[in-house]
Amino acid sequence: MTEPRPTREHLYEIIFEADTRAGRAFDLAVLLLIVSSIVTVMLESVPRLRARYGTWFDTIEWTLTVLFTLEYLARLSCVRRPLRYAWSLFGVIDLLAILPSYLSLFASGTESLVVIRALRLLRVFRVFKLARFLSEADVLLRALRASVPKMTVFLITVLIIITIVGTAMYLVEGAENPGFANIPQSVYWAIVTVTTVGFGDSVPLTTTGKLLASLLMITGFGILAVPSGIMAAEIFQQRGPRQPTTQVCPECLAEGHDHDAAFCKLCGGKLN
Amino acid sequence: MTEPRPTREHLYEIIFEADTRAGRAFDLAVLLLIVSSIVTVMLESVPRLRARYGTWFDTIEWTLTVLFTLEYLARLSCVRRPLRYAWSLFGVIDLLAILPSYLSLFASGTESLVVIRALRLLRVFRVFKLARFLSEADVLLRALRASVPKMTVFLITVLIIITIVGTAMYLVEGAENPGFANIPQSVYWAIVTVTTVGFGDSVPLTTTGKLLASLLMITGFGILAVPSGIMAAEIFQQRGPRQPTTQVCPECLAEGHDHDAAFCKLCGGKLN
Amino acid sequence: MTEPRPTREHLYEIIFEADTRAGRAFDLAVLLLIVSSIVTVMLESVPRLRARYGTWFDTIEWTLTVLFTLEYLARLSCVRRPLRYAWSLFGVIDLLAILPSYLSLFASGTESLVVIRALRLLRVFRVFKLARFLSEADVLLRALRASVPKMTVFLITVLIIITIVGTAMYLVEGAENPGFANIPQSVYWAIVTVTTVGFGDSVPLTTTGKLLASLLMITGFGILAVPSGIMAAEIFQQRGPRQPTTQVCPECLAEGHDHDAAFCKLCGGKLN
Amino acid sequence: MTEPRPTREHLYEIIFEADTRAGRAFDLAVLLLIVSSIVTVMLESVPRLRARYGTWFDTIEWTLTVLFTLEYLARLSCVRRPLRYAWSLFGVIDLLAILPSYLSLFASGTESLVVIRALRLLRVFRVFKLARFLSEADVLLRALRASVPKMTVFLITVLIIITIVGTAMYLVEGAENPGFANIPQSVYWAIVTVTTVGFGDSVPLTTTGKLLASLLMITGFGILAVPSGIMAAEIFQQRGPRQPTTQVCPECLAEGHDHDAAFCKLCGGKLN
Repeated sequence: MTEPRPTREHLYEIIFEADTRAGRAFDLAVLLLIVSSIVTVMLESVPRLRARYGTWFDTIEWTLTVLFTLEYLARLSCVRRPLRYAWSLFGVIDLLAILPSYLSLFASGTESLVVIRALRLLRVFRVFKLARFLSEADVLLRALRASVPKMTVFLITVLIIITIVGTAMYLVEGAENPGFANIPQSVYWAIVTVTTVGFGDSVPLTTTGKLLASLLMITGFGILAVPSGIMAAEIFQQRGPRQPTTQVCPECLAEGHDHDAAFCKLCGGKLN
Repeated sequence: MTEPRPTREHLYEIIFEADTRAGRAFDLAVLLLIVSSIVTVMLESVPRLRARYGTWFDTIEWTLTVLFTLEYLARLSCVRRPLRYAWSLFGVIDLLAILPSYLSLFASGTESLVVIRALRLLRVFRVFKLARFLSEADVLLRALRASVPKMTVFLITVLIIITIVGTAMYLVEGAENPGFANIPQSVYWAIVTVTTVGFGDSVPLTTTGKLLASLLMITGFGILAVPSGIMAAEIFQQRGPRQPTTQVCPECLAEGHDHDAAFCKLCGGKLN
Repeated sequence: MTEPRPTREHLYEIIFEADTRAGRAFDLAVLLLIVSSIVTVMLESVPRLRARYGTWFDTIEWTLTVLFTLEYLARLSCVRRPLRYAWSLFGVIDLLAILPSYLSLFASGTESLVVIRALRLLRVFRVFKLARFLSEADVLLRALRASVPKMTVFLITVLIIITIVGTAMYLVEGAENPGFANIPQSVYWAIVTVTTVGFGDSVPLTTTGKLLASLLMITGFGILAVPSGIMAAEIFQQRGPRQPTTQVCPECLAEGHDHDAAFCKLCGGKLN
Repeated sequence: MTEPRPTREHLYEIIFEADTRAGRAFDLAVLLLIVSSIVTVMLESVPRLRARYGTWFDTIEWTLTVLFTLEYLARLSCVRRPLRYAWSLFGVIDLLAILPSYLSLFASGTESLVVIRALRLLRVFRVFKLARFLSEADVLLRALRASVPKMTVFLITVLIIITIVGTAMYLVEGAENPGFANIPQSVYWAIVTVTTVGFGDSVPLTTTGKLLASLLMITGFGILAVPSGIMAAEIFQQRGPRQPTTQVCPECLAEGHDHDAAFCKLCGGKLN
């Protein structure tokens, strides 16, 4: 394992993979630095703290930015096709994560954009690559992907309901209630209500408005149940006893056999 | 495909079907115009924007209304039985979607009713007819329809609880708290609370009131779980693909075959 | 069907059963009267309406009370064991539903208790006896009953969390924030928060308080999921392909056979 | 049962076990005392009540503390390895439950820490040891434990979304809205919003802010569905009773037998 290798490949394994001890250590260190960087940006936004520890924050921020820049260059240098990495999703995120700091030299107010670094934390799942977390994340991802068509149908329906109820509330409340002064604001209220967030910054005042709101809230009850139902069914589907194996029929190449299948369900050929 | 056809049938295919390229293009164009129309109505309701772009909004609004009127006439003319279309659900929505604009010539304040056009967006699912979206919408619809009896039972029970708790809150809080000045208002509060929206425009002030509210909220916990549970069970029930059939192998009497199975997965015997 | 019968039995069938046309008509009439009565009480609580239609409301209220009294006496007279009915759950509700009106002759302020009548609406499910509503209500009831042990375990855990977090919030916020002036109020806030109702009448002001609240809300996320999960699993369990039949083995009297069972799973005896 | 036994073992059975009548009585008495103690602490925190019943509360509090101390010593004395108990989870909780009272002699303000006693209520499940509650609690616990990896993946993703949306809201609203004056506060708002608690103490005021908030709330819809789905799938997975076994009938090869089945439900053949 410790026999001399070509450095670039070795570097690649440390930076991009998380299978070796060095690779995991590197990834964990990067994650820790990202979290420190985000916490610094957050605390820096509090005027009281910035006044007191401002120079400390700046020092930490710039040290981390330099480290992340070196890391980005190292990634570019050790990958076989640098351009392909640069244009990949994680490559773009990695670049976006360092750019704001440099931009802040020219335009103030852009430092906070550094929180884009939070997206890099998604790499955390890579570190647990060998553990069961990845397969669980995979089940969730597959369930989410499988639920996209149903969720789309659901969201379009909800948006239509929200538009109509929002406008109705504008017609009913608009004249007397500044919280429903125009349709976009009423639609915003409908979203706040149907998602059961209920800020309470604008509430219906007329009797008709309250009736309409009651109807929307009770409908929201049923509506809220739909995505839970979709997700529960999808997650349950993705796993467990009835989940098809990846076994392929040696005769007709059919897939999707049950765990207890001994013969191909399509051609009757014997499975392994 | 481009051979000359009788125009009415051809028109019908473009306007009502979404199977041909022209049909899909037509439907997509209509959807886009509906969305533009709704956005225009929304923005027009903002006084600041109306003052500035009022004439633009009016122009867009009337152009779209004329287009929708032409579309409605075209639908009437190319369909075999115009009256039947006119009285169908979508026919009525199509008419209601253009009427408010004309009504606004006589009575002001009716322009906003134009958002009924949002209902026409439900046609969006037609455009994806050939994709799997329709079958997913179908699963959702069947699950919703199958859940109607359970949901009715559930809603009646919730309404009874809300009525009783609302009245109890009126008796407890009514004398001192303007937010519970009468029973309808207290029932409205109970709805806001049990659905976990919680606007906060009226809150219990007495100790007994807070105890009662706590009880309602904790009950609401269990209550909220019921519709999710119903939907999850129904959706899971509705999707057959991996749900085993009741088919029995004629040779070994084994059960639990998939819908697409042609051979027994246990003995390889041919299924019916 | 219309052949002369002993009147008491006939009356019993009309009043207590919902199988005959007359029985259903009677039940529906009673339900309608109950709803009217509740709506009257609600509207009467609005000072503006009481001032205007007060005498109307009183007339309706007393007419309905007399009718419900007659109905109660009729129930008592036609049932075989009047005392047993009088002490049954529905018998007590029926009595409680008329008592407040008479009490209001002696003590004012008790009229509103009349909403106990709302509980009588639970009889609505009886009217749909022959339809599938009853079996659906039954599935829900069985699922609720089956979920009682899990829900109890869940609620005790939630109450313990609420007590501890509420007290912690009192220690953290109590000195500066009147919304957390004592432990019961802080616990009330914790209930409002963990159920995601979030009235906003009291909110944490200190940084530690906000951190603690964030922790509680994110935990609430997972917490909220548990009852939905329990209910979904129970409802799914209660129904469908794997739901046992009510068939009893003629040899060993065992129950709980599957729908496809031809032989008793316990003694191997042939089922009907 | 009442034959003389060695006292220490006898004491152990009463204090630590809940199988005998005396053991259950002891446990129930302890639970009752814990609840009384917590209620006393809660009421004592209300200034009005403390002024009036202060000495009563103190007397109850100290009596209970002495009783709990005796109980703790009894536990230490009757257990075979006192140190192991003292360092066990419940041993530490038992000690922490009495310490604050003694600490309050030296430092005021620590009395409220006594609510740590609430954790001792978790022992309630031990009292129902023989009933089905324990197995249900077990199903829940196993489901919770099984959902940890998925929940972790889910929570990390939610935290990343919250961080980014919170910062974006700070950039958009921060200048004009004191509720978004710094990033930690904006992130706090994002947590309040995405969990649908929605206190309403800070709400977006700008149009861009409202758009972003709408997006977050609608995303929150889908997000909220995920943990419900996870829990539903896990709970359903955990409970075997009606889930068919994988046992195959040796005579007809039929599958899908219940766990309690001794004979094949299809051919009546004996199962293994």
